[in-house]
Amino acid sequence: MTPAAPTEAGRPTAGPDDSFHVFDTTLRDGAQREGINLTVADKLTIARHLDDFGVGFIEGGWPGANPRDTEFFARARAEIDFKNAQLVAFGATRRAGGRAAEDPQVRALLESGAPVITLVAKSHDRHVELALRTTLEENLEMVRDTVSYLREQGRRVFVDCEHFFDGYRADPDYAKSVVRTAHEAGADVVILCDTNGGMLPAQVAAVVSTVLADTGARLGIHAQDDTGCAVANTLAAVDAGATHVQCTANGYGERVGNANLFPVVAALEIKYGRQVLPEGALAEMTRISHAIAEVVNLTPSTHQPYVGVSAFAHKAGLHASAIKVDPDLYQHIDPERVGNTMRMLVSDMAGRASIELKGKELGVDLGGDRALVARVVERVKERELAGYTYEAADASFELLLRAEAEGRARRYFRTESWRAIAEDRPDGTHANEATVKLWAKGERIVATAEGNGPVNALDRALRVALERFYPQLAKFELVDYKVRILEGKHGTESTTRVLISTTDGVREWNTVGVAPNVIAASWQALVDAYTYGLLRAGVEPAE
Amino acid sequence: MTPAAPTEAGRPTAGPDDSFHVFDTTLRDGAQREGINLTVADKLTIARHLDDFGVGFIEGGWPGANPRDTEFFARARAEIDFKNAQLVAFGATRRAGGRAAEDPQVRALLESGAPVITLVAKSHDRHVELALRTTLEENLEMVRDTVSYLREQGRRVFVDCEHFFDGYRADPDYAKSVVRTAHEAGADVVILCDTNGGMLPAQVAAVVSTVLADTGARLGIHAQDDTGCAVANTLAAVDAGATHVQCTANGYGERVGNANLFPVVAALEIKYGRQVLPEGALAEMTRISHAIAEVVNLTPSTHQPYVGVSAFAHKAGLHASAIKVDPDLYQHIDPERVGNTMRMLVSDMAGRASIELKGKELGVDLGGDRALVARVVERVKERELAGYTYEAADASFELLLRAEAEGRARRYFRTESWRAIAEDRPDGTHANEATVKLWAKGERIVATAEGNGPVNALDRALRVALERFYPQLAKFELVDYKVRILEGKHGTESTTRVLISTTDGVREWNTVGVAPNVIAASWQALVDAYTYGLLRAGVEPAE
Repeated sequence: MTPAAPTEAGRPTAGPDDSFHVFDTTLRDGAQREGINLTVADKLTIARHLDDFGVGFIEGGWPGANPRDTEFFARARAEIDFKNAQLVAFGATRRAGGRAAEDPQVRALLESGAPVITLVAKSHDRHVELALRTTLEENLEMVRDTVSYLREQGRRVFVDCEHFFDGYRADPDYAKSVVRTAHEAGADVVILCDTNGGMLPAQVAAVVSTVLADTGARLGIHAQDDTGCAVANTLAAVDAGATHVQCTANGYGERVGNANLFPVVAALEIKYGRQVLPEGALAEMTRISHAIAEVVNLTPSTHQPYVGVSAFAHKAGLHASAIKVDPDLYQHIDPERVGNTMRMLVSDMAGRASIELKGKELGVDLGGDRALVARVVERVKERELAGYTYEAADASFELLLRAEAEGRARRYFRTESWRAIAEDRPDGTHANEATVKLWAKGERIVATAEGNGPVNALDRALRVALERFYPQLAKFELVDYKVRILEGKHGTESTTRVLISTTDGVREWNTVGVAPNVIAASWQALVDAYTYGLLRAGVEPAE
Repeated sequence: MTPAAPTEAGRPTAGPDDSFHVFDTTLRDGAQREGINLTVADKLTIARHLDDFGVGFIEGGWPGANPRDTEFFARARAEIDFKNAQLVAFGATRRAGGRAAEDPQVRALLESGAPVITLVAKSHDRHVELALRTTLEENLEMVRDTVSYLREQGRRVFVDCEHFFDGYRADPDYAKSVVRTAHEAGADVVILCDTNGGMLPAQVAAVVSTVLADTGARLGIHAQDDTGCAVANTLAAVDAGATHVQCTANGYGERVGNANLFPVVAALEIKYGRQVLPEGALAEMTRISHAIAEVVNLTPSTHQPYVGVSAFAHKAGLHASAIKVDPDLYQHIDPERVGNTMRMLVSDMAGRASIELKGKELGVDLGGDRALVARVVERVKERELAGYTYEAADASFELLLRAEAEGRARRYFRTESWRAIAEDRPDGTHANEATVKLWAKGERIVATAEGNGPVNALDRALRVALERFYPQLAKFELVDYKVRILEGKHGTESTTRVLISTTDGVREWNTVGVAPNVIAASWQALVDAYTYGLLRAGVEPAE
């Protein structure tokens, strides 16, 4: 419970070893999050990312309970050569009244081939009686028998005491007897789980230190985030003597989620000065957080501590002026330590200082020209009022900035008109067709293409029309597409905002379009995306 | 620093009074969040919500620094009759070398008419020298002069010590001298701000108790969430003796955000048993959180503690079976205390128990029929694999459930074909037109309509075609529309998922459509939305 000494400046004191465990359960407990549905291929990809990041243990799932998890263990053993992590299989203690050696579920754990097994055990008297429907004594016997059997079979065993903190409140002696039983039967670590997530840090610290003193077991912590304190609860347990933390990438998990792996390890390494990952791994944190979000198909949280794209983004004019003096004045750490970067946001709250810094970031020097900066600020205000957002569309902002700085917009082609048709035919088939009429290098081009949707058809027609003039377009690929309906206020019509991410295989850029409808907004964002890509490729504007 | 005794079962001990302050700064510090851009009308609406919720103080902005904030104070005084809150104006101490009585910025604070003024003061030596560019002594004089002057003018004064914790680490004596100066000059509360958000709870508690002992000032806490610990840091400060908490609705704020008002007050009321809001206000929390998200035009976070739609959502088969026995076994509080509800999620991880409970929630009894439940589980798996998500589309799930239970889908009309055209003409105008060909009550109907976009045109054509048969449609309104591109894996084509929210003025329902393109996916979701609405209106299916 001693406050960690602030050691931001200090170097981590030692490399990771068995004395402290970073245990990831994204693939098991994290997958309980609403909206996540992982295939075996997804799980293998995430396991590779977590191993790269350097966690010590990856809990892969519950073999035997779920065919997908059984397959995952088989394929992970065959396909992944783990550099840092050990694979962990999760399962329950044997059935009441049976024998661990004969329990089919326990057998499935062994057959998974995982060197480490986490057993979940009940430690709350009411759960034993109402959910497990057995006696308190038999529950202890189930723990003892299953742990001993798995140890005899040569596996390392961790025991998750489910609902430990609620159980401890209801009957501290029984809760502790479960910890003691697991410990005496040979479990290496006994994990106190705040399964319902209702705890606060001071309570966690008090319980962990008492249980540590009373049982002598090595303790771990598994916190859920229902009070918004999962990271703090995890750290409070470490302060009180726990040496094993169970977390999930991006805090994915049931209900509100689990303790988020990234702020927990960042606090341990940066704030506590305790090395818990391999050398250099922390600087991969932002990339790995985003990569895992992509695999589970959730938009990365922009406001996640340390790794969110907003985590080191500065908006207020007050801050922006001070940052010109010294960035450390307004950041708790150097964002590069966690692989993130400082960003200056462009918005109508930002003053001239932000616009100048942003220009510098983009390589456009606005330093001397106060009138130009004022014009850009004005133009951003006007466009944001109409629904544009330049915070999320750097490429569209750069085009705006250059248009103001250079006196005219860069143009590689001019739109005369376009038309998109989506059709559902009586036979159930769909047709999507788009026609564009453009001017490029003095020529008029009319092109038509089909696509799997109207925007895709427009995108293809645009390429058909322009690839002869700009062969660079062949490399551009639309990689993400987001639509947001901006509600009309005070009875006005609503508008649609489209954000498009495009890549040329090396870098990615974001553009925005706003219009009363999704197709017209998409067209604008596409035109910006192609214009920016050609600009970056060094192509001279033709118009 | 004593851990709060767990008192979940207990009643709050006393009503809110001046001995403890819930201070909201959504309108000032919260507005710094990336993506938020508030109009004066937005700010007035949010102020009303916060007053309804019962916070004691609403910091409205920085009058004088920003014309919108000046206007806000004028209109708030004229238009809002506050029931619980006092309005607070935020501003800086007077300029170096000047006099508070002559400072234009200090005058703007008085002219705002706000009864309470929060002054921001530097308390970190480096900030005084580098950002403020004055001496440490003059900074103290600026605090003393400005606080005394505002007190003479009859205002209550709070002082925000910016960068306090970093300043305390660098030079604890100077940081404390700022607190002491503000206190002695007549500030009612001195707020220790973790402006860069780098602190952890144990550190915050240690600093707050020392400063409290050494200065005797009444202390408040303002925490930013850069370590993911803002809520815990706020509570740690309260444990250490702070009696004023500064928070923002939904944790909005610069970079990662501020301490989130909702989990802070929920912890104080439910976990600490300390009443900090008017009687009954906590049960409005979920509604108010979502309402404020709507005003700032951000999707409410689904995983926010206490108030997220996922906060009491259960997915795992294991949990679902236990919940059938006793919901309290798997929830840290009764969700109704914060105005939220328990939800059973339908997904292919859910077993039969979840589907049965979900059926019961929807009023469809599946209790006896194991084969039927198995069919529904199978169908959900199959559809979710194709990209549907029933977690977010209860109405579409209910239609699926009824179709399986009743042997056939409810149908009020049958689609023969449709076509949508979006066009951008050479003169810059847009045209959107849709034609639908349907069958209803034995008749074939062909209808065409225009709209502000292709989906809107389809929606209107559908109404034109059907209103003669189903006049109830006139009341239905599409209130939200979300598009998500589901990335194709392993080279397959990507698909589009559309979620639509529809209202009949009383209740709202959500439907889903999945197809290779946005128009076709929208059509499916529209058909489900109309079918469900008619079903709920008690209309007999005609097909």
